[in-house]
Amino acid sequence: MKIRPIEWQEGIVRILDQTQLPEWVVVEEFADWHGVAEAIRAMKVRGAPAIGIAAAYGIALAAHQFEGNNMNEFRVAMGEVFQEFARTRPTAVNLFWAIERMQQVVNTAATVAEARERLLQEAHCILQEDYEADVKLAQYGTLLLPPQARVMTICNTGALATGGIGTALGIIRMAYQQGRLAKAYVCETRPRLQGLRLTTWELLQEGIPFQLITDNMAGWLMAQGKVEAVVVGADRIAANGDTANKIGTYTLAVLAHHHRIPFYVAAPCSTIDLSTPNGKAIPVEHRDATEVTHIGSLRLAPQGTPVLNPAFDITPAELITAIITEEGVAQPPYTTSLRELCSKARLSSR
Amino acid sequence: MKIRPIEWQEGIVRILDQTQLPEWVVVEEFADWHGVAEAIRAMKVRGAPAIGIAAAYGIALAAHQFEGNNMNEFRVAMGEVFQEFARTRPTAVNLFWAIERMQQVVNTAATVAEARERLLQEAHCILQEDYEADVKLAQYGTLLLPPQARVMTICNTGALATGGIGTALGIIRMAYQQGRLAKAYVCETRPRLQGLRLTTWELLQEGIPFQLITDNMAGWLMAQGKVEAVVVGADRIAANGDTANKIGTYTLAVLAHHHRIPFYVAAPCSTIDLSTPNGKAIPVEHRDATEVTHIGSLRLAPQGTPVLNPAFDITPAELITAIITEEGVAQPPYTTSLRELCSKARLSSR
Repeated sequence: MKIRPIEWQEGIVRILDQTQLPEWVVVEEFADWHGVAEAIRAMKVRGAPAIGIAAAYGIALAAHQFEGNNMNEFRVAMGEVFQEFARTRPTAVNLFWAIERMQQVVNTAATVAEARERLLQEAHCILQEDYEADVKLAQYGTLLLPPQARVMTICNTGALATGGIGTALGIIRMAYQQGRLAKAYVCETRPRLQGLRLTTWELLQEGIPFQLITDNMAGWLMAQGKVEAVVVGADRIAANGDTANKIGTYTLAVLAHHHRIPFYVAAPCSTIDLSTPNGKAIPVEHRDATEVTHIGSLRLAPQGTPVLNPAFDITPAELITAIITEEGVAQPPYTTSLRELCSKARLSSR
Repeated sequence: MKIRPIEWQEGIVRILDQTQLPEWVVVEEFADWHGVAEAIRAMKVRGAPAIGIAAAYGIALAAHQFEGNNMNEFRVAMGEVFQEFARTRPTAVNLFWAIERMQQVVNTAATVAEARERLLQEAHCILQEDYEADVKLAQYGTLLLPPQARVMTICNTGALATGGIGTALGIIRMAYQQGRLAKAYVCETRPRLQGLRLTTWELLQEGIPFQLITDNMAGWLMAQGKVEAVVVGADRIAANGDTANKIGTYTLAVLAHHHRIPFYVAAPCSTIDLSTPNGKAIPVEHRDATEVTHIGSLRLAPQGTPVLNPAFDITPAELITAIITEEGVAQPPYTTSLRELCSKARLSSR
């Protein structure tokens, strides 16, 4: 079974509702772009690359919906669409990167019909590029793992989170196919349990050996010498290498550092944001308290419990052994190595 | 409201079923000691000191149930009772310490009637001693905190886990009463969520300021300089200071070390096991996979998900700033300081 988190089908954006996995495999169909924006906000589609792809198709859908041929009216309408998508999730930079690419198309198109056509092509292109990036990234990443590696990961960075085989989970997939993976350790990833619900679901489908742990077992496993590498995804990588990723990533980085275990970040170059100098400049989304106090509609914590719920944390560059992209592996100092990879990425996308 | 996890009432052991908190406040009444053993195994009563107290009352109940006056038959019957309680939970040493005290009574009693009477007195005594130990321990612990301290803790180490105000949570309580506590950070404590369900419940009742976090947010909070101390309980402290406690404790200790935040273990001397040389010799209980894959009867992970579920981890002595007991504060090297405190404890209990 091929997992497709987002698909375009004749004027409809189809989104696999990840909030209902693994219990239900439900594909929602959107003929209105507002629904796509809401699906991103509600995390029916999540994962930095997938958010970018979903936004691109949502924007193409908005153009598809636009009636009339007046280019000025079209530009105004699309401006509002861009703003709406930009407000859905603040941390993942792929969102803003995708919006900017779509904005370029609107800026350079001569007619509404041309813009409509080219916006859809651009969305297809973003999806296809991400698919190809995942494969290349996984090839680079697999080379960094020792034979019979036991690899720990967090959240879901697989086919559900991207346009292809995934980033960190793509490396785990390829390492398994090449016989280099002994086992993956999947952190459940509270509060929304993307590891427990989504990564397990992907790995079970392919028969990749793994064990699920609660997030607070990570230190215990490392102390027993049972982890050869930690590989995580990213929602935004700053110019100096500081990386925003799912809450709990920083804790894993500190643990890996303490146990002298290599800690790798895997992400396409679209996740690197050279305009953000360092982690302090990355906005961290805080989400609703009920994500912590409830599971679905089931209340677990007592009424009135005060909660903190940052969706992401920032891992400083010093704790990152290397950053794996489709253009190669960036080593410290990241300020120069990331800039080089981004230049290569720009050249190869022309 | 006074929280009483275990009570004796005229031949009945009453246990507050902590698996149903905070949703339901249910007190189960046991007229048969087997029910008490099962309540410990099923974690209806949990927390190292409370497990010891529950076992003591369960044993007193078994003596109460014994029919006849034949001392030999009584000793044989009680031997089976001791074995049954020893099998309930392997890690908390208070259990074995309480069983040993009860065994001493059986060994030295002349008649069944005398044994029955003295066993109940011994159980009352274990409860009362634990109550007093909590207060003294909290006094010592509070002195270690700076003014306006923000204190992180894990699991439930409060009135629900002990015979008194609690160990780590007793310190938080007293620090609040003395105006030294700015805030407690409560780690939710997967998989069984004792922090989210029980510690929140206790703190809300007394209006102590706190925020609940998922376990994987701990590093993020520390990195922001928002934590002045970590205080945790213990299930067993080895002679060298290595400490078994709820899974996730070790991860907090590594994080505290990385951020140069003091990391304190708080426990009565009954939790110190001088016969266990170090952490490697502490048996760690592994519990059922469904504790991770399910919340109550609700399945969250896909069917067939392989799981690791150690209930405890071991924090090495090097990561522990001090161990706080009712006899004073042990500093490294713990091999000598713990031995001294245990000698004082033996003298003061005579």
